Amino acid sequence: MLTDTATLQLSLDLVGVFVFALSGALVAVRIGLDLFGVLVLAWIAGLGGGILRDLLLGITPPVGVSNGWLLAAAVVAGLLVFLLHGRWQQFARRNPDARWGRVPSAVRVLDAAGLGVFAVSGALVALDNDAGPLAATLIGGITAVGGGLLRDVLARRVPEVLQRELYAVPALIGAALVVLLHHLGWLSSLTAWAAVALVFGARVLAIALDLHAPRRTPSGDGAPVG
Amino acid sequence: MLTDTATLQLSLDLVGVFVFALSGALVAVRIGLDLFGVLVLAWIAGLGGGILRDLLLGITPPVGVSNGWLLAAAVVAGLLVFLLHGRWQQFARRNPDARWGRVPSAVRVLDAAGLGVFAVSGALVALDNDAGPLAATLIGGITAVGGGLLRDVLARRVPEVLQRELYAVPALIGAALVVLLHHLGWLSSLTAWAAVALVFGARVLAIALDLHAPRRTPSGDGAPVG
Amino acid sequence: MLTDTATLQLSLDLVGVFVFALSGALVAVRIGLDLFGVLVLAWIAGLGGGILRDLLLGITPPVGVSNGWLLAAAVVAGLLVFLLHGRWQQFARRNPDARWGRVPSAVRVLDAAGLGVFAVSGALVALDNDAGPLAATLIGGITAVGGGLLRDVLARRVPEVLQRELYAVPALIGAALVVLLHHLGWLSSLTAWAAVALVFGARVLAIALDLHAPRRTPSGDGAPVG
Repeated sequence: MLTDTATLQLSLDLVGVFVFALSGALVAVRIGLDLFGVLVLAWIAGLGGGILRDLLLGITPPVGVSNGWLLAAAVVAGLLVFLLHGRWQQFARRNPDARWGRVPSAVRVLDAAGLGVFAVSGALVALDNDAGPLAATLIGGITAVGGGLLRDVLARRVPEVLQRELYAVPALIGAALVVLLHHLGWLSSLTAWAAVALVFGARVLAIALDLHAPRRTPSGDGAPVG
Repeated sequence: MLTDTATLQLSLDLVGVFVFALSGALVAVRIGLDLFGVLVLAWIAGLGGGILRDLLLGITPPVGVSNGWLLAAAVVAGLLVFLLHGRWQQFARRNPDARWGRVPSAVRVLDAAGLGVFAVSGALVALDNDAGPLAATLIGGITAVGGGLLRDVLARRVPEVLQRELYAVPALIGAALVVLLHHLGWLSSLTAWAAVALVFGARVLAIALDLHAPRRTPSGDGAPVG
Repeated sequence: MLTDTATLQLSLDLVGVFVFALSGALVAVRIGLDLFGVLVLAWIAGLGGGILRDLLLGITPPVGVSNGWLLAAAVVAGLLVFLLHGRWQQFARRNPDARWGRVPSAVRVLDAAGLGVFAVSGALVALDNDAGPLAATLIGGITAVGGGLLRDVLARRVPEVLQRELYAVPALIGAALVVLLHHLGWLSSLTAWAAVALVFGARVLAIALDLHAPRRTPSGDGAPVG
């Protein structure tokens, strides 16, 4: 069981690091960073969530700085984006009738995949380290949103997690589901990946349908913002 | 004494989380976030300082992710602001002669209350975990300014702690006072709350009088910034 | 050996804190902060990297909040910049033919010195705390870029580490060199300071020559960003 959990956690982390690193690298290319800036932002987006998770659980040094596989996943993702982005753009320009207007949303779909994987991984690692149900759920959520949040703060974008579509909620639900499965004794690779798929699906649906929660707009007539 | 200290710390934390969460939610509503964005920013502003404190002291997982009461305080504060903000605005519009120009400063007064509570709580928890006098003072200060700082970074405002009125200084003085009281053996609920009141009073006075330290302005003729 | 290492680490940290604090204070003065804002930014720039290093290694409380010498170095650097900046500006205005256009780059040269010192110090402390070679290299790099990164995020500048000239790479090479020296048994004060000089030299060269890695620019015709 322990070995199985360790393998499951590493698989989840590898996928999460890879997709979040792709998202970080895409953001970096779009704001005009050079190769090393791209790798740094890929690393922060890919490994930031797991590093926050490990700091919250007292796991030092965090796997995000000690595991070569995770680091390699981030570097490969960064290099891939850097090398292929130009060709993709050229191809897009030669095929203007294709639906390339959708390309910018690639960041959000990758982000959704990372969200699902890290919500589950964060909750699993927390449970393994004797965190209570509430802490495991929140740490799952923080693991899921942490990398993207650090990416957006450094790239000076409004953090995705504060934007209007549902973002943190699917991650928290996924982490809570893992905690529930754990307490019911139903946790396995299969159910864990199902939880990942649930978070990913809910998040993509929220993007596609532009679902969002109610807002209180400030009074329209030039209200003070301060 | 230990139980008393634990109760005192929880009371301080509850008040601090609540007022900082109110400030975070107000900022969130003003920049147009939806319900979940409001709750996220309320959570970060309310619990961020305590989480930084616990990380600096090696308390894992931090109470900010494991204590249900603190989490509930942040969520209630976020919901309150979200539900009541619209009515408040309507009322303000129907009563234009009231002094509603002062409403924006609500964030700063709440911030001042959180500053006082968390400076004292941070120093107390640090002393309880065998930090030295210097570390306890600084950790008190970081606990006090941490939540507001994270709130402002995520909301892309200039952090309050860097603004011109005295901000970090009252927090550091309050934390140092707690350390002194501890070493004199005079620390009690009464003296701790007196220290809170001192920090709050000093900070509100600094806002009201627009007190600020001297500045070195860059040369006025379009000096290079960077 | 242990004592020698401790002395070496404290010397490195003192120099690093001082130069990074100077850089933080200069940025603070340039964006018009008052005395306390200058001290806060000096403290964050000077001690932020070491605090991140200690958090990643589980050293609590971090030396950045418990060591009086390091704190004093940051405060002295902040006061120096605050007191002397005005005279420097006056002097510059009376001597307009001097090459004062270079003054803004002072931040970057100080930053380069801090980069070298903290890359080596970070790797040394990590090795002392039984981190593996990969973790020690990365923690060295994070220690080196952390203070400047926090400084830039709070001052709302684009972080230096994402800019186009080579920045993180010299730090990572310096940290890797320390790890190599350690495994070869060649680590001494002399070789450690040589590693510092190497990182500093490489970074200053990158600034002077405006060296940078290749970039993938987004398609020139108003491509979507985000």
